[in-house]
Amino acid sequence: MSKRLVIALGGNALGKTPQEQLQLVKTTAVTIVDLVAAGCDVVVGHGNGPQVGMVNLAFEHSATHDAGTPAMPFPECGAMTQGYIGYHLQQAIQRELARRGLERPCAAVVTQVVVDPADAAFSHPTKPVGMFYDKAQADEIMARTGYTFVEDAGRGYRRVVPSPVPVKIVELPVVEQLLEQHTIVITVGGGGIPVMEKAPGDYQGVAAVIDKDRASARLACDLRADMLVILTAVDKVSVNYRQPDQRDLDRITVDQARQYIAQGHFAPGSMLPKVESCIDFVEATGATALITSLERAHDALQGQTGTLIVKE
Amino acid sequence: MSKRLVIALGGNALGKTPQEQLQLVKTTAVTIVDLVAAGCDVVVGHGNGPQVGMVNLAFEHSATHDAGTPAMPFPECGAMTQGYIGYHLQQAIQRELARRGLERPCAAVVTQVVVDPADAAFSHPTKPVGMFYDKAQADEIMARTGYTFVEDAGRGYRRVVPSPVPVKIVELPVVEQLLEQHTIVITVGGGGIPVMEKAPGDYQGVAAVIDKDRASARLACDLRADMLVILTAVDKVSVNYRQPDQRDLDRITVDQARQYIAQGHFAPGSMLPKVESCIDFVEATGATALITSLERAHDALQGQTGTLIVKE
Repeated sequence: MSKRLVIALGGNALGKTPQEQLQLVKTTAVTIVDLVAAGCDVVVGHGNGPQVGMVNLAFEHSATHDAGTPAMPFPECGAMTQGYIGYHLQQAIQRELARRGLERPCAAVVTQVVVDPADAAFSHPTKPVGMFYDKAQADEIMARTGYTFVEDAGRGYRRVVPSPVPVKIVELPVVEQLLEQHTIVITVGGGGIPVMEKAPGDYQGVAAVIDKDRASARLACDLRADMLVILTAVDKVSVNYRQPDQRDLDRITVDQARQYIAQGHFAPGSMLPKVESCIDFVEATGATALITSLERAHDALQGQTGTLIVKE
Repeated sequence: MSKRLVIALGGNALGKTPQEQLQLVKTTAVTIVDLVAAGCDVVVGHGNGPQVGMVNLAFEHSATHDAGTPAMPFPECGAMTQGYIGYHLQQAIQRELARRGLERPCAAVVTQVVVDPADAAFSHPTKPVGMFYDKAQADEIMARTGYTFVEDAGRGYRRVVPSPVPVKIVELPVVEQLLEQHTIVITVGGGGIPVMEKAPGDYQGVAAVIDKDRASARLACDLRADMLVILTAVDKVSVNYRQPDQRDLDRITVDQARQYIAQGHFAPGSMLPKVESCIDFVEATGATALITSLERAHDALQGQTGTLIVKE
């Protein structure tokens, strides 16, 4: 039996422009194919923060400047980034597989992720998206659309959307079918297109951003993955990060991770959701989670670096 | 064994704005689920003309008006439409399946289609995309980028891209894996993201638009489909179309279809590529092709309307 890995790619695995992204995904593909070559079945989740911002901005700008294009709802912008990023990733992975003479299909699946309308995040939108406006513009848009805006010191007003918890991955059976055939699957792009389930099987898009590490953890639980691998900009998780007494962690239990969280060691919106996602996965499955850098993922899987989060 | 259908959706199955598209895909989903309920395994191909124009236009406009977004290459715009249209289609199909109590996964797969750099289409770009420019702007862009522009009477200058023949569907093994599990697959969106194969397995995007009926015919051949179904705005193919002696066709052989083509009965860019795609499929497989309307597809499969193209 192959080892089943769910890999969550961080922002450094992708790019802010199409040219930059085409370059960056080459390195990303090397990491992913290393793991495939080591005998793993790999599912790839990824973020879309800069990319969905870009799509949203292009459509907002064009729609408000008479370019003849319609306003584009936020979930649809997210769907576009799944196509755009998925295309680059699968192409780079296919090239790297071919370079090594490995035969393995790879494809991105458009993926919706259900969120709960009762999620507390909906009353506290926190994730900034799209353009900056002055106060008068922001007030006008708020009155017209019901959007929430917040002031970003000195830069103007910006829309914020909720960041709810992922509840269910709609296309899970499709991911499972492909994975059983050892296909490399790219899914839950940008945390998934956020939808509400109005009735069983009846989904509707909602303006929100699901954290991609939480969506990848949800996926890893549902697929009964052997390991959740969260790739980021650092080789190991640290306590007292960037302080004189910084200490890098090799292996921590869920209980230790919780203590470190309580002590405020992990930054919200950065390492905190990654560690929390690992805790959720490890607790639900008893399997192990790994946080390391994109560049050293292969070494980390052989125990040479990275931070393992284990049950006990 | 289930009957395997490849369905090519025409422009009337989708929409020019996200709101219009969300409405139109409801009807489209009824047709597709009718065929699933009748025991068929269904693969859905679709166009993206208005949608890729919209994405291209929003990015061109924003990039040329200092919105802070990069220019977006044409293949990437196509990848975005696969995410956007795939999301709407799969959501509508999932809802219609649930409404009828049918359990069947459905998902869109990001799909590249290989074209031949030696294709004659590359020396004769014909497909207009993006914004209108005045002559000075068009000349400047041509000099800077090497794009081809043509004058559209009275409306200005517009970029044209080639429309080459689809040679190979890169993600075919993924589509095949899903289809074997009776999953409804949405693929070759917009005719597929056009790529050239620089070395085996090494694909690179190219600015082009592949005809979606030709891509669907290629797919139907490769999947050894039992039938290629091209859905459009009319119930049947006609000779002497919109003339007093118009005659609707129930069933024609490949030879008859060729004769009608030679006699100029089918409009280029409209019915001609559909009939030619059917001829290619029928000749290659010996199976049957069907051209009919979205609304009457179910009736047509029961022989009540539509035009069948048969080997002899």
